Amino acid sequence: MTMMTVEQIEHFLDEVFPQRMGKIESVGDDMHANMRLAINNTHLRPGSRVSGPTMMGLADVCLYVAILAQIGPVAMAVTTDLNCHFLRAAPGDRDMIAKAKVIKLGRRLAVGEVQLFCADDDRPVAHITATYALPESELAITR
Amino acid sequence: MTMMTVEQIEHFLDEVFPQRMGKIESVGDDMHANMRLAINNTHLRPGSRVSGPTMMGLADVCLYVAILAQIGPVAMAVTTDLNCHFLRAAPGDRDMIAKAKVIKLGRRLAVGEVQLFCADDDRPVAHITATYALPESELAITR
Amino acid sequence: MTMMTVEQIEHFLDEVFPQRMGKIESVGDDMHANMRLAINNTHLRPGSRVSGPTMMGLADVCLYVAILAQIGPVAMAVTTDLNCHFLRAAPGDRDMIAKAKVIKLGRRLAVGEVQLFCADDDRPVAHITATYALPESELAITR
Amino acid sequence: MTMMTVEQIEHFLDEVFPQRMGKIESVGDDMHANMRLAINNTHLRPGSRVSGPTMMGLADVCLYVAILAQIGPVAMAVTTDLNCHFLRAAPGDRDMIAKAKVIKLGRRLAVGEVQLFCADDDRPVAHITATYALPESELAITR
Repeated sequence: MTMMTVEQIEHFLDEVFPQRMGKIESVGDDMHANMRLAINNTHLRPGSRVSGPTMMGLADVCLYVAILAQIGPVAMAVTTDLNCHFLRAAPGDRDMIAKAKVIKLGRRLAVGEVQLFCADDDRPVAHITATYALPESELAITR
Repeated sequence: MTMMTVEQIEHFLDEVFPQRMGKIESVGDDMHANMRLAINNTHLRPGSRVSGPTMMGLADVCLYVAILAQIGPVAMAVTTDLNCHFLRAAPGDRDMIAKAKVIKLGRRLAVGEVQLFCADDDRPVAHITATYALPESELAITR
Repeated sequence: MTMMTVEQIEHFLDEVFPQRMGKIESVGDDMHANMRLAINNTHLRPGSRVSGPTMMGLADVCLYVAILAQIGPVAMAVTTDLNCHFLRAAPGDRDMIAKAKVIKLGRRLAVGEVQLFCADDDRPVAHITATYALPESELAITR
Repeated sequence: MTMMTVEQIEHFLDEVFPQRMGKIESVGDDMHANMRLAINNTHLRPGSRVSGPTMMGLADVCLYVAILAQIGPVAMAVTTDLNCHFLRAAPGDRDMIAKAKVIKLGRRLAVGEVQLFCADDDRPVAHITATYALPESELAITR
């Protein structure tokens, strides 16, 4: 069982991170989180494609959600590094889907990977790996 | 002499990439570009700090500008990978400064690094390296 | 069907890259390659753990093998970037297993990811993503 | 003044990490370390160029040396991520020079960048950024 449900995480993020992109679709015991982003004009780059920063921003929050689901409401977990490989152009007329998975949940660091897709296309458009630093005092409480 | 001036690049980006962040401060023969971003609420994450996607987006466009200054107006140069190390929290009440430098300008790929700073603080808040794929047909024209 | 079998790839690498690490266990239509490395003292770092460069070297060659299996004998494909997240200490008394998969095979660039394991342990010890630049003239022949 | 001299670091590494590559040329208060590696046949890849794993291994140890110079003899500092962009082919008939610099030295994490050169050529052949996790108990002693 995860520490937080989708609804609890959305509620928590509404308070601490209202600027975030996308809606959570699922989280799970396998340390995954899936999100969906409705693409609008602010998300585009030249050529009417989804911009790189949009993709990295969605991946970043999706991995954060996957971690929150495991460790509970920790506002101050922070990304320490993020690596993104852009694989294919992502047309701007479809929702973007993020599938994050925590691949290591340590005491001080969590590492995960995220695949991004355009809705209804199973070829990934980007692959992201990132590390989050976890605040130790809060962890002492939550874990 | 660069292929484009600051004014020419801003004009070109106004047409092809109006969604971008920040203003160009300088470009130069040493393959650098400096930009400045006025931070507002949309750029923040929990804790009133500048968000990671804001930083990565500013770095991405700043390196693109540094490349444009060298090769001329190429709308479809695309980022193929981006790596970001976040070094320090960036308070949300100051402008963010990006300093990009192209470290390899090849026929097909350009690689550069970007340092981000808060205005009036010389400690970098993030360090980014990224690769851009350059369209060959356009290069045939521009170089 | 792959362009080269395990035996053909080992034979090719014996000629062009005798310094490489590890033995190929399998390649496949799904663009994967698996390799195994017998760890000896030269592969260790302080604490009798497998060193980071050993892991990155094995991952690099394993992804190269996965690409060769798809495109045929291309000696001069070169890594353009490699990102590695180290997840867990890898004890030096077991073989290391690499599982590579090409996630994008383009005309000029191939991107893949690699997971590394210690034999008989299903928790990954490192996660690598990397890009290879493919020589166009050779590709014109082989594809 | 650094916590350790070049000689002290070499002596320490002889004990805990005899497998490392290269010789230290300098360390300094500005948190830099420079190293030099005499290239031999074991360091090469197809085309008689210096191999990627050789470059990443040299960069990794050079950044480790830069950190040791600042915090003293900490055997168990471990790399948590490493990102490498390969910029130019490095001919195998020259020494390789590594120039590392710590860009953030925190309580738990240190981040640095490394540039690699061939001797007598001022164009970088690779650019590396990496993070080291610092053991907290040892830090309590050393800092």
